[in-house]
Amino acid sequence: MTYCLGILLRGGLVLASDSRSNAGVDQVTQVRKLAFLPTAAGCAVAIMSSGNLATTQAVVSTLREMAGSGQPGLDLSAAKTLFEVAGIVGAVLRAVIDRDGRFVAPYGDAAAGFLVGGQMAGEAPRLFQIYAAGNVIEATDRAPFLQLGETKYGKPILVRALTIETSLEEAAKLALLSFDATLRSNVSVGMPIDLLSYVTDSFSSEDVKTIEVHDPYWMALREAYGAGLEELIDRLPTP
Amino acid sequence: MTYCLGILLRGGLVLASDSRSNAGVDQVTQVRKLAFLPTAAGCAVAIMSSGNLATTQAVVSTLREMAGSGQPGLDLSAAKTLFEVAGIVGAVLRAVIDRDGRFVAPYGDAAAGFLVGGQMAGEAPRLFQIYAAGNVIEATDRAPFLQLGETKYGKPILVRALTIETSLEEAAKLALLSFDATLRSNVSVGMPIDLLSYVTDSFSSEDVKTIEVHDPYWMALREAYGAGLEELIDRLPTP
Repeated sequence: MTYCLGILLRGGLVLASDSRSNAGVDQVTQVRKLAFLPTAAGCAVAIMSSGNLATTQAVVSTLREMAGSGQPGLDLSAAKTLFEVAGIVGAVLRAVIDRDGRFVAPYGDAAAGFLVGGQMAGEAPRLFQIYAAGNVIEATDRAPFLQLGETKYGKPILVRALTIETSLEEAAKLALLSFDATLRSNVSVGMPIDLLSYVTDSFSSEDVKTIEVHDPYWMALREAYGAGLEELIDRLPTP
Repeated sequence: MTYCLGILLRGGLVLASDSRSNAGVDQVTQVRKLAFLPTAAGCAVAIMSSGNLATTQAVVSTLREMAGSGQPGLDLSAAKTLFEVAGIVGAVLRAVIDRDGRFVAPYGDAAAGFLVGGQMAGEAPRLFQIYAAGNVIEATDRAPFLQLGETKYGKPILVRALTIETSLEEAAKLALLSFDATLRSNVSVGMPIDLLSYVTDSFSSEDVKTIEVHDPYWMALREAYGAGLEELIDRLPTP
């Protein structure tokens, strides 16, 4: 399993991904599920992956190898909008599943999915989800976050507290609390967390933090949230 | 879908169930998923249901009709322990699925599951889950709650805040917060909520409340939790 979360904000984007990859419970490893895409200069676009690791790696490697090739519909460096970028990711995903799917089927599922978020020159930041079918949906102000993988445990806190007006700092906090809820219930989601905070119009891919299990901020956040929640529940009216 | 939650406490039990039943999104109705079982006098045992409504109703009706029949392994009124009660529920469930399953298969799934919680004379309160296979598991002090149906959205708050030492009042609050989280994300879980608080050694089946969507306590709880959570998140350290 996997948990990836993308949040679209007026002030930018927050993207977060876990690092667990497993083929059965007896074969567990760590992978980085967040990467930057080779879009045109002056753009900043990240991709997060879930599903079959061979498929997701093949898609990302192919996207990199095709960048600059000039191949219509497959060259990320020629894309002008994030909608185009998402379409290219979907097209490459379709091609990989089309090629590998029937060979993989006896052993498992070749399906995969992606979140693609970032900002292209001349656009506001945008956030897309690419399904295994290669079709895409976009986050909007009414539903400003998208999730991959184990989506349910971490959703209630987002539904309650997150809007597109939330600040980047608050959204990063909420993202980590959403991951904490997920990590507590699903062992197939694992640390470290890669967390990207993107400020609108910065066109920067600098602010990526890898949060390890003993990260002091992560530990302080979990502890403060746990204690605060206990106190809050105590204060709530009794039936 | 359904959401049912059973909580085992030192001081008793809290059981809660939603009321939505649907066959597709275009056929939605309300059902009561919590009922008392016809166990021997001086015992108090409730059952909560999920899955195919024809199956769950057939199981509960059959349990009622067999009570007092003297049929070995099927007569709830002769059961001495809650483990025996759970076994009888499992046996009747197997018989119903065995009889109906292949006829239902072309249209859907005849499977169902139950939570059975209560206190038999001479025992402490106990809580069991009956799977569609008819086998059963029991809640323990390390894992003091069991869930049916849409289990994930409502789990994080329980994992964080609930132990077997929690008071009945606090556990009822947590149960309702767990339902609130679930109701916000899954429209196939619906109000009203039936909420049973059982005090150890009371052998009473009196304290069942039906919480409607405009229930003043329910509304006050949700509002206070929402506001408190917002304030708590504000107070948490920033990355």
